[in-house]
Amino acid sequence: MTTPPRPAPAHVLDWLDEAAERRAKAGLTRRLRPRAADSTALDLAGNDYLGLARHPEVKAAAAEAAHRWGAGATGSRLVTGSTEAHAQLEAELAAFCGTESALVFASGYAANLAALTALAPAGTLLVSDAGNHASLIDGCRLARATTAVVPHAQPAAVAAALAGHDGPALAVSDAVFSVDGDAAPLPALAETCRAHGAALLVDDAHGLGVLGPGGRGALAGAGLAGAPDVVATVTLSKALGSQGGAVLGPERVIRHLVNTARTMIFDTGLAPPAVAAALAALRLLRAEPALAERARTTAATLHRRLTAAGLTAHPPAAAVLSLRAPSPEAALAWAESCRGRDLLVGCFRPPSVPDGISRVRLTARADLTPTQLDTAVTTLTATAPH
Amino acid sequence: MTTPPRPAPAHVLDWLDEAAERRAKAGLTRRLRPRAADSTALDLAGNDYLGLARHPEVKAAAAEAAHRWGAGATGSRLVTGSTEAHAQLEAELAAFCGTESALVFASGYAANLAALTALAPAGTLLVSDAGNHASLIDGCRLARATTAVVPHAQPAAVAAALAGHDGPALAVSDAVFSVDGDAAPLPALAETCRAHGAALLVDDAHGLGVLGPGGRGALAGAGLAGAPDVVATVTLSKALGSQGGAVLGPERVIRHLVNTARTMIFDTGLAPPAVAAALAALRLLRAEPALAERARTTAATLHRRLTAAGLTAHPPAAAVLSLRAPSPEAALAWAESCRGRDLLVGCFRPPSVPDGISRVRLTARADLTPTQLDTAVTTLTATAPH
Repeated sequence: MTTPPRPAPAHVLDWLDEAAERRAKAGLTRRLRPRAADSTALDLAGNDYLGLARHPEVKAAAAEAAHRWGAGATGSRLVTGSTEAHAQLEAELAAFCGTESALVFASGYAANLAALTALAPAGTLLVSDAGNHASLIDGCRLARATTAVVPHAQPAAVAAALAGHDGPALAVSDAVFSVDGDAAPLPALAETCRAHGAALLVDDAHGLGVLGPGGRGALAGAGLAGAPDVVATVTLSKALGSQGGAVLGPERVIRHLVNTARTMIFDTGLAPPAVAAALAALRLLRAEPALAERARTTAATLHRRLTAAGLTAHPPAAAVLSLRAPSPEAALAWAESCRGRDLLVGCFRPPSVPDGISRVRLTARADLTPTQLDTAVTTLTATAPH
Repeated sequence: MTTPPRPAPAHVLDWLDEAAERRAKAGLTRRLRPRAADSTALDLAGNDYLGLARHPEVKAAAAEAAHRWGAGATGSRLVTGSTEAHAQLEAELAAFCGTESALVFASGYAANLAALTALAPAGTLLVSDAGNHASLIDGCRLARATTAVVPHAQPAAVAAALAGHDGPALAVSDAVFSVDGDAAPLPALAETCRAHGAALLVDDAHGLGVLGPGGRGALAGAGLAGAPDVVATVTLSKALGSQGGAVLGPERVIRHLVNTARTMIFDTGLAPPAVAAALAALRLLRAEPALAERARTTAATLHRRLTAAGLTAHPPAAAVLSLRAPSPEAALAWAESCRGRDLLVGCFRPPSVPDGISRVRLTARADLTPTQLDTAVTTLTATAPH
């Protein structure tokens, strides 16, 4: 006779409900809001900076790749998950950005985890900007290195951290910070790193397609693309309208990642439709370099008109623009009022903001029309908290 | 007059070349081998267990979604990255697997990082099987909990770890271990967790679509699906032939993940073509439950015939089968000999194997023909190391 199975204790996860209550009281509850395919709302919330996610050639490339390669990569890049489409995208991405080599991952998050864990083994000092993206923070935590978090966008603080360390070091920074849309001081950062024999890792998620000559990114803009001591990460899911991420750098960095990066070795390769879509978007950008400038101009116009209307925002370094709100509740109410008027904007609240200040966040797109810009400015001004 | 920029020091990353030399000497160099779309090689290396990645309906669903929704999700699931297609997939996935709720991520890796970091805050004890997948290991390292790694597939070891802890605890295990294809003792694990008031997290990446009634997964097979103290993670990139991952569990777990999981909040949502492909594959599986049994039968046949031919392999719990090799070099030579005869098999070498033993790894597919099975057995036997 066997013992009857023990009943499942329903209370084991009760703490989740208590956490939910605490969030609700603090005005920090988040919910998914699935959108419809035929939504006519004006989107100033997504990261499709060049409007390429729905470009006919990008969509057609994704569809064609699904038929040609299948829906998925079927395995790790090291087993069956590398197709000739991946290799082609990597070659063209590296050539476009001016680096020796590139390696594509299933997400930008995975690319950052890969770069940090592979390039910062035990004994390394990681010097990480306090405003860095969650994926860089998680990468630092996963790496076996020691991490020093330094004040936001201050090369002198990076220098101070590096000065006290004897051994390999890697400074880590977003090129454009995702919350406020401000830029890292890349030339000064590179100088600081070189003075201390450190390498530099830059996440150019918001710079690719928007900054630098023809959208070649912040590192190309700073004259640092292709440097032997600089590694970049990018996403394929923002200006390139697809999904995935990539690490760009010297060939020996990429070879090292192929051999050691856990999110490459142990993750399924990026799906061929996403690979093909990113490549089609890259080719559109290469053929029309003005796209990048148009995204920047739109952002600058938006900033100028919103500040002229009395709102306060950090000048956008790329296409991201944030408007501070007095509280999480006020930020949410502002975003909801906009949504009620068919304008989608992001709402950033703790814990997604490093300084605890809630914001409404806008993204400028290269394809916004003057009428759409008028609508955005009018709506944001009319709904702003007092 | 400004100081001229300091030249880039070329030597900063020289240690990468030294690491490459050490790998080469140990026979552990890895290279990407991009495959062609028209490759006619017999694929026993990928994880497309049901052969659905190239199923006409799955490919058509991906292509249709690219046209309908665009190539990418355009933002975080919390901003613009949730579409009605995501919600539909989540509803059908939860219903199929018998859980209250589901949440889709850009990869299985991201789903595991999310589940572990969100469900194991500081003060929690994580009890992790020594054979767990890299993404579970990384999730344990990222979580603020304390982790106890316990010997492989030994509920008594889990019990001993839990007995010494006062406070919330979560046991973590793969349902089917990816290296040897053996199964976790799920009923005993659940009993152990319940005896100690711990929750249980099971990664069913290799079970979904293969194990349980109609491929509903290992937890459904063990009568644990829908339990209030059990959470599952799955991939959409193996039996469902697409890309992405999901967490399945009680509604309050999913709500908690939406609010706290960093790979959900800070990562772009899964691309609509991948969402639609996974949903189409799920519907095919639901309509043809025999697919799951066929994958298992193929694996059992492969195991029976390979062992009859003198090779040694662990009996497959699902569709993964491993053949041990005497050295990394021998494993690589074996896999290369197979490739030379148009048979693709995986080659697992350190550091991808927890016990340091190199292997040739096979995956059985539901759609392998008797002739293909003959070819596989003949080729593997003829090329085996002596």
